[in-house]
Amino acid sequence: MLEYEEGRTELKSLGKFALVERLTDGFDKHQSNTLCGVGDDCAVIACHDQLLTLATTNTLVEGIDFDMSYTPLRHLGYKAVAIAISNIAAMNGTPQQVMISVAISNRYSVEALEELYAGIRLCCNRYDVDLVGGDTSTTQSGMVLTATVIGQVDKHQITYRSGAKNNDLICVSGDLGSAYSGLLVLEREKINFIANPKEQPDLDSYDYVLERFLKPEPRMDIVQFLHEKDIVPTSMIDVSNGLASEMLLICQAGHCGCNIYEEKLPIDYQTTRVCSEISKNMMPVSNALNGGSDYELLFTIAQSDYDKVKESREVHIIGHITDGDAVLVTPQNTTIELRAQGFQNNDD
Amino acid sequence: MLEYEEGRTELKSLGKFALVERLTDGFDKHQSNTLCGVGDDCAVIACHDQLLTLATTNTLVEGIDFDMSYTPLRHLGYKAVAIAISNIAAMNGTPQQVMISVAISNRYSVEALEELYAGIRLCCNRYDVDLVGGDTSTTQSGMVLTATVIGQVDKHQITYRSGAKNNDLICVSGDLGSAYSGLLVLEREKINFIANPKEQPDLDSYDYVLERFLKPEPRMDIVQFLHEKDIVPTSMIDVSNGLASEMLLICQAGHCGCNIYEEKLPIDYQTTRVCSEISKNMMPVSNALNGGSDYELLFTIAQSDYDKVKESREVHIIGHITDGDAVLVTPQNTTIELRAQGFQNNDD
Repeated sequence: MLEYEEGRTELKSLGKFALVERLTDGFDKHQSNTLCGVGDDCAVIACHDQLLTLATTNTLVEGIDFDMSYTPLRHLGYKAVAIAISNIAAMNGTPQQVMISVAISNRYSVEALEELYAGIRLCCNRYDVDLVGGDTSTTQSGMVLTATVIGQVDKHQITYRSGAKNNDLICVSGDLGSAYSGLLVLEREKINFIANPKEQPDLDSYDYVLERFLKPEPRMDIVQFLHEKDIVPTSMIDVSNGLASEMLLICQAGHCGCNIYEEKLPIDYQTTRVCSEISKNMMPVSNALNGGSDYELLFTIAQSDYDKVKESREVHIIGHITDGDAVLVTPQNTTIELRAQGFQNNDD
Repeated sequence: MLEYEEGRTELKSLGKFALVERLTDGFDKHQSNTLCGVGDDCAVIACHDQLLTLATTNTLVEGIDFDMSYTPLRHLGYKAVAIAISNIAAMNGTPQQVMISVAISNRYSVEALEELYAGIRLCCNRYDVDLVGGDTSTTQSGMVLTATVIGQVDKHQITYRSGAKNNDLICVSGDLGSAYSGLLVLEREKINFIANPKEQPDLDSYDYVLERFLKPEPRMDIVQFLHEKDIVPTSMIDVSNGLASEMLLICQAGHCGCNIYEEKLPIDYQTTRVCSEISKNMMPVSNALNGGSDYELLFTIAQSDYDKVKESREVHIIGHITDGDAVLVTPQNTTIELRAQGFQNNDD
């Protein structure tokens, strides 16, 4: 390794996006059916006249992306597949096949792996996805789990990150910040458990936020809703790293700005409650903007589609695209520049 | 984890194939375009009338599949892609896109990762494959590298593991056992280096076997040859775990047996030389049968195709399919049952 030490640049010194950009710079395109490579939620490959193939891969690492002390293996298997499906949803597509690569230490038993696969199977059945392959390997310690999902999308329905236009409405599904609140509860109870091993963790009244973190659901119901309402969003992304970070990616890709209205952000009352419990300085809106792992869909639609979404309980209009900066508008009508200061996990 | 401890089955107690079978048991098929799932070199997905999509994923784990003390990162990147392409070759297909998921500790610098990606790029350019996505994650220690390759194959040319018929000729490309010989040399020099750190490793005269192990080439030239000669093999697999293990998989899938003739096995003189250096009891034929990582193609063809391959220097006819057992025939005309006692690495 010595030869690389001179002029060493630490991995931490680059953000994830800058790192990916640096590593993938200079790769040539060889295949005419490669329609979209690095830089969106999925790779897009021409399949036949009408259909495009989507492919995405996502890795979860023990000790970084999940903590075995509070992650049931069944939930972990479910989540690994769900996160990858969420990337297919973000292209307005339908997931069809999954390949699972699991590298695992001998600390785990066959029965533990079976629990993991029970969760994978549950998610496959829930979203009509076929397990079609993968790889099992040994590690010296810990577990690394990679899910690759393949799907399809009609070429008239595919939705990229780019494409947001001035005055488009900005929509988000579900609610924001709840998954991160679930993580905060789990971390708090872990610390309490280490301090007082005889006390049982107090998790009973946190079902919703815990499930949001441990067993997220990709919003295929929203993709279905968009198809039924004959809406093709002008841009879309899934919210894995916090709303601010994802909104900035849409603005960068679309060369536009946005006004996001703070009071329009959908925040569940349990998120608010957890914030007040954890610290009086913790603002729910900050969790919504910067907390990760919600796996909601963030998308923009033409104003002409307003009537089609206004009745939906699951789709919230939170702002609009501008030709200015990307800003949050507070209830006091001041503007704050959006920043990608998200809880930077590895799920994208 | 306590809930899983009762009746614990150790991972080591099951072979890789038995483990995969146990884990993937009970998964339903949901999608009509899934033509082949777990159990061949690639997943096969219907694309349009004429073309099928192939997908395969392969993981390499530091300390298990590669040893950083003698694996240049550029070679590692190349190898990760090459191994996955080899699975596409084994279906008689053409690789087109790759996604790379790398989980890496902060011990590595950005420059080290750039070396890895330089190798990935080299392999992509060599085989006209587009990098279309992936994931970068952190680990607490070590590196885990997963390559997912997507490709295409004409539906009249696709070759599964199953399909070998009685009297078909058994062919293998290149030579066998050389990659494992390369590994033996590297391991020997590593031990010498630990004992005598001031001495430089003696690797000069082992170029061929070292390259076979560190930088394998998928046999796309053989796929090209088959297309040019208008040969569709009746079955095919790539030799990742040793000839014996792969031949048994073809026999199991085709419900047949085979006669492999020991004296027909293609073995390079450097393989023979390394064996004699390492131990007087080490037989080159044993490396050919059980050494892994050669990534040659093993395939069966109808006897009527004999004239088309007999002149090839790169394709060797090593036996034929029978309706009996899977056996090795020695020069003394005794038969030995083939066993999957291969160097069981994680590359499949």
